[in-house]
Amino acid sequence: MEEIRIFAPATIANVSCGFDILGLCLDTVGDEMIVRKVAKEGVRITKIVGQDLPLEVEKNVAGVAALTLLKNVQSNEGFEIEIYKNIKPGSGIGSSAASAAGAVFAINELLGKPFSLNELIAFAMQGEKLASGTAHADNVAPVLLGGFTLVKSYHPLEVLKINAPSDLYATVIHPQIEVKTSDARSVLKQQVSLQKMVKQMGNLGGLICGLYTEDYDLIGSSLHDEIIEPYRSILIPEFDDVKRSAIAAGALGAGISGSGPSIFALSKGEEVAKKVGATMAKIYDTIQIDYDIHISKINQHGIKVLKEKK
Amino acid sequence: MEEIRIFAPATIANVSCGFDILGLCLDTVGDEMIVRKVAKEGVRITKIVGQDLPLEVEKNVAGVAALTLLKNVQSNEGFEIEIYKNIKPGSGIGSSAASAAGAVFAINELLGKPFSLNELIAFAMQGEKLASGTAHADNVAPVLLGGFTLVKSYHPLEVLKINAPSDLYATVIHPQIEVKTSDARSVLKQQVSLQKMVKQMGNLGGLICGLYTEDYDLIGSSLHDEIIEPYRSILIPEFDDVKRSAIAAGALGAGISGSGPSIFALSKGEEVAKKVGATMAKIYDTIQIDYDIHISKINQHGIKVLKEKK
Repeated sequence: MEEIRIFAPATIANVSCGFDILGLCLDTVGDEMIVRKVAKEGVRITKIVGQDLPLEVEKNVAGVAALTLLKNVQSNEGFEIEIYKNIKPGSGIGSSAASAAGAVFAINELLGKPFSLNELIAFAMQGEKLASGTAHADNVAPVLLGGFTLVKSYHPLEVLKINAPSDLYATVIHPQIEVKTSDARSVLKQQVSLQKMVKQMGNLGGLICGLYTEDYDLIGSSLHDEIIEPYRSILIPEFDDVKRSAIAAGALGAGISGSGPSIFALSKGEEVAKKVGATMAKIYDTIQIDYDIHISKINQHGIKVLKEKK
Repeated sequence: MEEIRIFAPATIANVSCGFDILGLCLDTVGDEMIVRKVAKEGVRITKIVGQDLPLEVEKNVAGVAALTLLKNVQSNEGFEIEIYKNIKPGSGIGSSAASAAGAVFAINELLGKPFSLNELIAFAMQGEKLASGTAHADNVAPVLLGGFTLVKSYHPLEVLKINAPSDLYATVIHPQIEVKTSDARSVLKQQVSLQKMVKQMGNLGGLICGLYTEDYDLIGSSLHDEIIEPYRSILIPEFDDVKRSAIAAGALGAGISGSGPSIFALSKGEEVAKKVGATMAKIYDTIQIDYDIHISKINQHGIKVLKEKK
């Protein structure tokens, strides 16, 4: 294969009760990337459309992830990357993860798949490190694997995929304000009470059981977070109201997407997910904050190949 | 039904990564109880064999659990309870839980099952409160439901059952030393670092995924606990050695059963579980500490009815 065009989806990390370990993959919002083999060795980013991001390989998350992959494989091939951004950086739905995971996925395909999808996670994480300072996996894993993903451990890196029930939909609203990941990290307390930990673990366990048994109510009642949300939600305008009204409109539960400012809700069925979105939007309409809104089934497969040139 | 004889099994709580919320049910060690209807209203404990425990209803965990159930049902019937203890109190394999859960299970049967098994958990928890000061559910739940149980939340009480893979065996060794539950609680730190919490949650998630997917290696690699075990293990002679040698002998993983002093290991297959037991025993033989040892398949059904008299 000489060239590949892919869809690299947006993702929701943390998913309330799974700080730093849970993520899920979206279907209706994501970037497109074209990666092609070229004669000149190394990686070049030749085009970025939709966002003002660095073309310099070492300063670009896709570039860094690609270089990390190539360091780990015997190859003197060259690659050109074009990125068509639809996910806004800083939105909290895995903009950097989509670029980093997309780059390693595409190059791996062009090289004839020397690595498994699980192995690609570690390379993509180096892109995340460039973006936020920590090589976290909770966004890049669902981009690559689809469904829900659980980072079971970081040392050694072990990531598990859990399929989502087929009628589970996410609604994501992105208020157009900036929350820096570094700020969202610095507001967190570094110590947690044993009691709150036990509560959080009960919810994480409940969510995983709910996914395996396709118990939508259990999924909903597990979407709680008393450890991270109380601090980070302060940075998000009208968070409590948006969350409350989403649940009142029929959502199973709601919380902060990643480190924010996007707010997500999960619902059973597309119709409910749309109604939830309309209710969330109304709150930002009232206080005149601009927003993007996405309604999406859980994407069970992650990155999609749109076109291949032999 | 006029009389019922039951087997009330021992249980392993916490299971390394599930402090206060996980438990599993054993099959080869447990108490027997006979409960019969009598003319005189109320609850009486008429016989306790095998242990020196109070016959006074208000001071006995089975009595307190039984009274709690009866407070919640319209009945003026009377019940006599006989308890044949095989589980040693203070061993860390749910001695009080077996008695408390056994009593409410038996009375519920004699009353024609006004309550579901899940509803009985709350009554049995009152027995636990008498025994240890806290109404915890991580032992009584697996006695009643069998398999693995997850206390998803305490307020409201919500307990989930997870079936164990059919070839999963537990080995439990009980060194004959006393560790008071109150001491085992008081050594714990009340604050946990966010980083350790994330690690523990990854393992809890991994264990649950491993149970659903019957992935024995994943179950094993999830049996870690950096939060509770480092403190409680100090109270257990040769803990590190026993754990290490169990794993060297083929166990998937090992840890403290409940608040100790019993140590458990999980293995794939009975043969490995026996070999693990022999290895653990050898260590206590060497330092001349007496012990009991139990090898058991995971009990998928909890309490067993041995005999019914119409």
